[in-house]
Amino acid sequence: MLSLADVLAARDRVNEVARTTPLEYSHTFSAATGATVHLKLETFQRTGSFKIRGARNRIGTLSAEERERGVVTASAGNHAQGVALAATRAGVPSTIVMPKYAPISKVSATRRYGSDVVLHGVDYSEAAARAHEIEAAEDRTYVHAFDDELVMAGQGTIGLEIAEQCPEADTVVVPIGGGGLVSGVATAVKGTLDDVRVVGVQAEGASATADSLRKGSRQELASVDTIADGIAVRATGEKTFPVIREHVDEVVTVSDEEIAVAVTKLLERSKTLVEGAGAVSLAAVLERAFEYEDDETIVPVLSGGNIDMNTLTTVVLRGLVEMGRYLKVRTELKDRPGALERLVEVIADANANIFAIRHDRTSRDIAVNAAEVEVDLEAHGDEHAAEIVASLEGHGYEVDVLA
Amino acid sequence: MLSLADVLAARDRVNEVARTTPLEYSHTFSAATGATVHLKLETFQRTGSFKIRGARNRIGTLSAEERERGVVTASAGNHAQGVALAATRAGVPSTIVMPKYAPISKVSATRRYGSDVVLHGVDYSEAAARAHEIEAAEDRTYVHAFDDELVMAGQGTIGLEIAEQCPEADTVVVPIGGGGLVSGVATAVKGTLDDVRVVGVQAEGASATADSLRKGSRQELASVDTIADGIAVRATGEKTFPVIREHVDEVVTVSDEEIAVAVTKLLERSKTLVEGAGAVSLAAVLERAFEYEDDETIVPVLSGGNIDMNTLTTVVLRGLVEMGRYLKVRTELKDRPGALERLVEVIADANANIFAIRHDRTSRDIAVNAAEVEVDLEAHGDEHAAEIVASLEGHGYEVDVLA
Repeated sequence: MLSLADVLAARDRVNEVARTTPLEYSHTFSAATGATVHLKLETFQRTGSFKIRGARNRIGTLSAEERERGVVTASAGNHAQGVALAATRAGVPSTIVMPKYAPISKVSATRRYGSDVVLHGVDYSEAAARAHEIEAAEDRTYVHAFDDELVMAGQGTIGLEIAEQCPEADTVVVPIGGGGLVSGVATAVKGTLDDVRVVGVQAEGASATADSLRKGSRQELASVDTIADGIAVRATGEKTFPVIREHVDEVVTVSDEEIAVAVTKLLERSKTLVEGAGAVSLAAVLERAFEYEDDETIVPVLSGGNIDMNTLTTVVLRGLVEMGRYLKVRTELKDRPGALERLVEVIADANANIFAIRHDRTSRDIAVNAAEVEVDLEAHGDEHAAEIVASLEGHGYEVDVLA
Repeated sequence: MLSLADVLAARDRVNEVARTTPLEYSHTFSAATGATVHLKLETFQRTGSFKIRGARNRIGTLSAEERERGVVTASAGNHAQGVALAATRAGVPSTIVMPKYAPISKVSATRRYGSDVVLHGVDYSEAAARAHEIEAAEDRTYVHAFDDELVMAGQGTIGLEIAEQCPEADTVVVPIGGGGLVSGVATAVKGTLDDVRVVGVQAEGASATADSLRKGSRQELASVDTIADGIAVRATGEKTFPVIREHVDEVVTVSDEEIAVAVTKLLERSKTLVEGAGAVSLAAVLERAFEYEDDETIVPVLSGGNIDMNTLTTVVLRGLVEMGRYLKVRTELKDRPGALERLVEVIADANANIFAIRHDRTSRDIAVNAAEVEVDLEAHGDEHAAEIVASLEGHGYEVDVLA
């Protein structure tokens, strides 16, 4: 099983390419929770996520022959970029198989880091199958995204940094997909700090580890569904699971809505871009998905920031809706002069700002002399959103709240 | 005129509330430009912008009587939050007049920092008039957003930090609205570093300072129009203009498209949220709005990150469009079975990803047996976007590029 010595051995190798990321006290999130919250900002890591650490450690231990033959892997996301840069910096050729419909921004980034990118298959499984064919045909080393002790040890160097940057940490909170990050970090902090607790966090729609711990053995999910694509993994690793069982105190889950709120708050309040998978740790703290005390020092690991700009827009909108800050309503207007003006007035009197109005006189569901209107509104929060709807209804409008 | 001594005198006062913000080498932007680029990350300042510095210095020099009577100002943005927090921390009551249609997020933030917010008027001028009424009626001190030497000196502490964090700086690049930030920073770096150059940057749609320098005297613009609302100011200050004339080597402008690209790149590559006004400095570097050498060390000041989430979505979309990464096209389909499927196939063959499709059979501009389709696409860049359009045209589609 992975040991502290493995993580310590990884450190120098990892530091050749990866940077020591900042750990920062957050006034905002401490005030919001009552605890003392320090954010481990791995989102500022090279390639935008922690994956470079494990990839670097794996590639840094290859033999001369293995280096020459090169590496291969499959990934639609952060692991692709991590392997690409780690390999290129070590002078090792790399081939990365990405699913055909991977976001173009991620494909471009992986190429920019120097990998030969092969687009193949409609999903991760098909891409992985192709990568294993290349592994066999070209005698390359396959770099697994998590189920490899050298990879796990590399990710664990984040735990060593936390132990140095925040030795007073009581609880370290870590996202879990396949378990590579959490097994490394838990091994590192349990080995270096006294009385530290490690809490793992999964998305509700991809909670294989939580499920496996509950049932006492590794479970494979039939499918996964979450906006946190970086941790949308169907099964915990064979090598990561025993480490999690040994060192992780608790594994909890958060919903997509909670994740969206955490991403939005990090952006708005901390000016920091964190992807869904990287923000589940903070979401668990904000939602009290696990218990903690007021005098506790909590370190959520924000593990990456590679969210493509189109997804970001969707996630932020969902976050604002969830906080009662964005409200989309549909109503019907009598189609006569001044009807729209009157609606706008009612909204202004309710102290809401209008972002957008869509006015449709051709919808088939409504009376011929009526028009359908959809309005996007900015509100102060849940209470204000409810007041706006009540005010519209009080003025005789039938209101559908769409979001 | 403002002197280095004023800025030095401000430092301790400012440090009581503001933080020393990080200055970080940017591998991405150095590689993109050939120069050595260090970002001064003032976006991570308390309240999300530099304005807290000047406000703190102004409030920190009030007499006991003035403190008791309180302060007042008008602002729709960062200055509101800066004055609010600086006043609250000093135990000084503050009233901030904000225009009625200010983004709710900014109103909420200002209230959260402890100010009494008055919503008045449709724009800044009307809000400012109301603030001056309150100044007179309640005998409060008016804290000007830029045209005040104590405010300018406070902003200048950023320059002192740059001189310490990056003494090798050849060129410091600073956004200009009313000129408070640039006059302080220029005074500080010219006073502490040898042979340093200061370049000021304005938005094309709000270039009063550039215009004034060209004409040799302060000019007032009839109106301003830019997505960088934080520097949408109609005239340089009376007190800031002479300092700019003395210490700023060059003032250049950037377009809204260039600003949108800079905001998007900072988010995507540096995982850092910077508002339009804060990103003009980097935009000027990326667009070579001024000349520089390959061996030059350049420090763009990224002065703030308070962009409301709805505006952010718009700006990022514009940035992606400008980079050829987001393409919106309209075309017509014969309305028969399989027509849409064929279009989708042509797009897939061009290696583009589809974000959204809108299909409308009721548009009045087209033939009865046809349907209008709008498609939002993800592309690799300008060249690829052009290829996609050419491929569609090659397959017989008439294409309107909407964005």
